[in-house]
Amino acid sequence: MTLREEIEALCINAKEASARLALADTETKNGVLLRIAELLEQERESLISANQQDLEAAEENGVAKTMLDRLALNENRIRGMAEALRALVKLEDPIGTGESWTRPSGLTISRVRVPLGVVAMIYEARPNVTVDSAALCLKTGNAVILRGGKEAISTNSAIVALIKRALEDRGLDPHAVELIESTERESAQILMTMRGAIDVLIPRGGKGLIQSVVENATVPVIETGAGNCHLLVDESADLAMATRIAVNAKCSRPSVCNAVETILVHASVAAKFLPMLNDAMQDFDVELRGCARTKVLIPTATEATEEDYYTEYNDYIVAVKVVDTLSDAIAHINKYSTGHSEAIVTENADNAERFLREINSAAVYVNASTRFTDGGEFGFGAEIGISTQKLHVRGPMGLPALTTEKYLVRGNGAIR
Amino acid sequence: MTLREEIEALCINAKEASARLALADTETKNGVLLRIAELLEQERESLISANQQDLEAAEENGVAKTMLDRLALNENRIRGMAEALRALVKLEDPIGTGESWTRPSGLTISRVRVPLGVVAMIYEARPNVTVDSAALCLKTGNAVILRGGKEAISTNSAIVALIKRALEDRGLDPHAVELIESTERESAQILMTMRGAIDVLIPRGGKGLIQSVVENATVPVIETGAGNCHLLVDESADLAMATRIAVNAKCSRPSVCNAVETILVHASVAAKFLPMLNDAMQDFDVELRGCARTKVLIPTATEATEEDYYTEYNDYIVAVKVVDTLSDAIAHINKYSTGHSEAIVTENADNAERFLREINSAAVYVNASTRFTDGGEFGFGAEIGISTQKLHVRGPMGLPALTTEKYLVRGNGAIR
Repeated sequence: MTLREEIEALCINAKEASARLALADTETKNGVLLRIAELLEQERESLISANQQDLEAAEENGVAKTMLDRLALNENRIRGMAEALRALVKLEDPIGTGESWTRPSGLTISRVRVPLGVVAMIYEARPNVTVDSAALCLKTGNAVILRGGKEAISTNSAIVALIKRALEDRGLDPHAVELIESTERESAQILMTMRGAIDVLIPRGGKGLIQSVVENATVPVIETGAGNCHLLVDESADLAMATRIAVNAKCSRPSVCNAVETILVHASVAAKFLPMLNDAMQDFDVELRGCARTKVLIPTATEATEEDYYTEYNDYIVAVKVVDTLSDAIAHINKYSTGHSEAIVTENADNAERFLREINSAAVYVNASTRFTDGGEFGFGAEIGISTQKLHVRGPMGLPALTTEKYLVRGNGAIR
Repeated sequence: MTLREEIEALCINAKEASARLALADTETKNGVLLRIAELLEQERESLISANQQDLEAAEENGVAKTMLDRLALNENRIRGMAEALRALVKLEDPIGTGESWTRPSGLTISRVRVPLGVVAMIYEARPNVTVDSAALCLKTGNAVILRGGKEAISTNSAIVALIKRALEDRGLDPHAVELIESTERESAQILMTMRGAIDVLIPRGGKGLIQSVVENATVPVIETGAGNCHLLVDESADLAMATRIAVNAKCSRPSVCNAVETILVHASVAAKFLPMLNDAMQDFDVELRGCARTKVLIPTATEATEEDYYTEYNDYIVAVKVVDTLSDAIAHINKYSTGHSEAIVTENADNAERFLREINSAAVYVNASTRFTDGGEFGFGAEIGISTQKLHVRGPMGLPALTTEKYLVRGNGAIR
C-alpha cells in the first residue's frame, strides 16, 4: 500500500464510523469520554514511558526547549487531561438541538444541529491537543482523523490506542478516532486533498502550516490561530491601565495566538507613555522594535521594518508605532492584522465605540487584554481552536463550531 | 491595464466601499433598495431596449430557447424585480443583532452579526439574479462584485448603472456594487483567486461552473445549487400520494435544483407502483431510465447506467431503481446524492424517522415534494442560493447567510 492508499483506507473507515457515531445519544458519547479519562489515569505510567521515548528522540534531534515543554507528559498533566474530559461531559450536547415551525403549505420544518461528519486535524507536537480534539469531536458525534507533530508520535499512538479501547468498551466503532502514523510531510499533504472523505480540516500550528493548507487543501478548511494582535493606546487612555494591559497582553504568555504583537500609541501621549511602556517591558526583557518617532523616545528600541508590522513574533518582541489619529490606527490594524484580537485603551466612549465598530477582527476589546480570546474565558467551556476566518465560525470555536444544520420537513402529501 | 489589474482595481474599490457600507443603518440600506425599485420601473424602457440587444445577439449565436427565456425582460418581469426589492425591505436586517453576557472576569462580551465584507457572485445570464444578489448584499451591508453570463452583458450593465445611481442618490458609495464587464472566461478565473479582496464567492450555475470554482478558487466559497435529488417510495407508501409527489418533484419545473432526478422504489410495491408512475410520467413525456428490475415492469424504460445515478438531468428524464430495503435506499442516496434534498413517501413512522436521521442532505422530506427547498417556502423571505456544503450555511441561504459574527468585549482594565 502506498501512503496515499493507507490514508484513503483510514478515511473510509472513519467515514463509516462517523455515520454510526452521528446517531449515538449524549449518554453514550459522554460514557466514552469518561472511560477515556479513566483509562488515561489508569495507564499513566505507560503513557509517560511512551512520552519518554518521544522526549529522548526530540532531545537528540535538538528540538527547542519550549517545544520539549509542550511535548512533555507527567502525572499532573495527565490528570489535567482527564479533568478536561470530565468538564466536557458536563457541557450541553448541541446535536439534535434546534427549532421547528409550520408553513402555510402545511409543512412542518425543523432545523436541527447534526455532526459535520469527519473532522481532520493537523497540529504540532502537543499530546493534550490529541486528547482535546478527539474528545470535542466525539462529543459532537464526529469522527476525527489526527495528524500530530512527528516529535509526539509515540505519545499520540499510546493515547489513541486508549481512546480506541474506550470506544470499544462503550460499544462504538474504534475507527471513529484515527491517527495517521506516518509523520512525513507528505502525509499531511495527502490528508489535505481527501475531498469527499473529510468534511472539514482544522489546522492548528504556525504560519507555515496555515499557509500550506491555504495553498494545497481541496477539502473545506477552518483557518485558526494566526494572531497578529494589536493594542492601541488612545489619546485619553489611563496610561497606568494601558501599561498593565500591554504587559499582560505581551508577556503573560508570548507564545500564544492572542498575545499582542504591535502596540500603537497616539502621538499626543507618546512622550509620556512610551518611557512607561519601555520600563515595564524591560522587566521581561522584551525587545521593542519601533518606528522613527518611537526611537526618538525609546533610543534603545531597534528599528521596525514594514515586515515587522506583519509579523506574529510569538516571542518577547513587540513592534511599536506612533499614530496621529484614531483613523490612522484603525487603518493600520485593518491592513496588518490577521483578524484575531485587537484592543483599545481609552477613556473616550465615542472612540471606544468607533474602534469596536470599525475594527474588522474576530474579537475587539475596550480596556481589556487581548489574552481573553479563549473558549474558556468566553464561557464556551472548551475550544478546538480560534477561527480567524469569517465563514462558518469566527473567534473561539466551541462545540457548535463542529456541527452543521439539517432541515427535516414533514408533510402529508404536500406538492408545490 | 491588464484584465487582472482591472479586476484588482475593482476589488479594491469594492473593499473600500464595503467598510463604509458596513456602518450604514437599516433605514439607509432600505432607502437604497426602494430607490432601485423606483428606478427600475422608471427606466423600464431603456432596460428593455438594452435587453433587446442581448436577446438579438443571443439569438444570432444560437443560444438555447430556455436560456433566451431566462434572459428576457419585459414590463411584467421588471415589476416583479421591483416587488421583490420592496418585499426585501420588510425583512429584518440581521446586522447588529446578537446577545451579550458578563463573565466572572468582569468582561461584558457581545456577539453581534456583521457583514461578511465583499461578496463575489459568478452566475448565468439571468438579469433577475443581478438585482436579487445586489439587493441581498446591500441589505446585509456587503459590497458585491457581479460577474454574470456573457449573454446578459448589456442588460446587466444597464441594471448596475441604475443601482449605482440609487446608491449615489442615497449618499452611499456606488462602488458598493461592481459589475465585471469582461465576459471572457478568464475574468471569472481571475475573480476566483482574489484572495484577501473577496470574503466569499458564491457561484450560481451548472456543474461546470461549480467544478471550476472548486478546483481553482483560492477565496472562500459557498457551493450552491447542485441538486441530484431523490425520492424513495417505501413499502408502506400511499401509492397515489407517491405518484402525485413524483410528478410534482420531477415535472413542475425540471430545470431547477430541487427537482427529483432518481426515484427509488421498494421491491414489494414495485409491481404495483411502477406502472402507475409510468402512466403519470407519460403525460409529461418523461424519459424513464431504469435498472434491470424496473425494465421488467416498464418495458419502455431505457437502461440506466451507473453514470445516470450521478446525473442531475435538469430535464424531463428520471432514473428509476428498485431497492430491497430501506437500508439499501439510504446507502444509495448517501452515495450518489449531492446533499441537496431527498424525500421518502411512507406510512411507517419508524421508517420516516430513520430516513430523516440517516440521510445526509441539507433538506430531508417525509411525504412531501423536494420542490419545497427554497428560501421563500421555508419562510426566509429571500434567498441568494441553496448551499450544498456543510460549513457556514446549509440549504436555502437567507439574509443571515451573508453575515458573520464579531465579539465586542468591554472591560475596565481587565488582565488575565
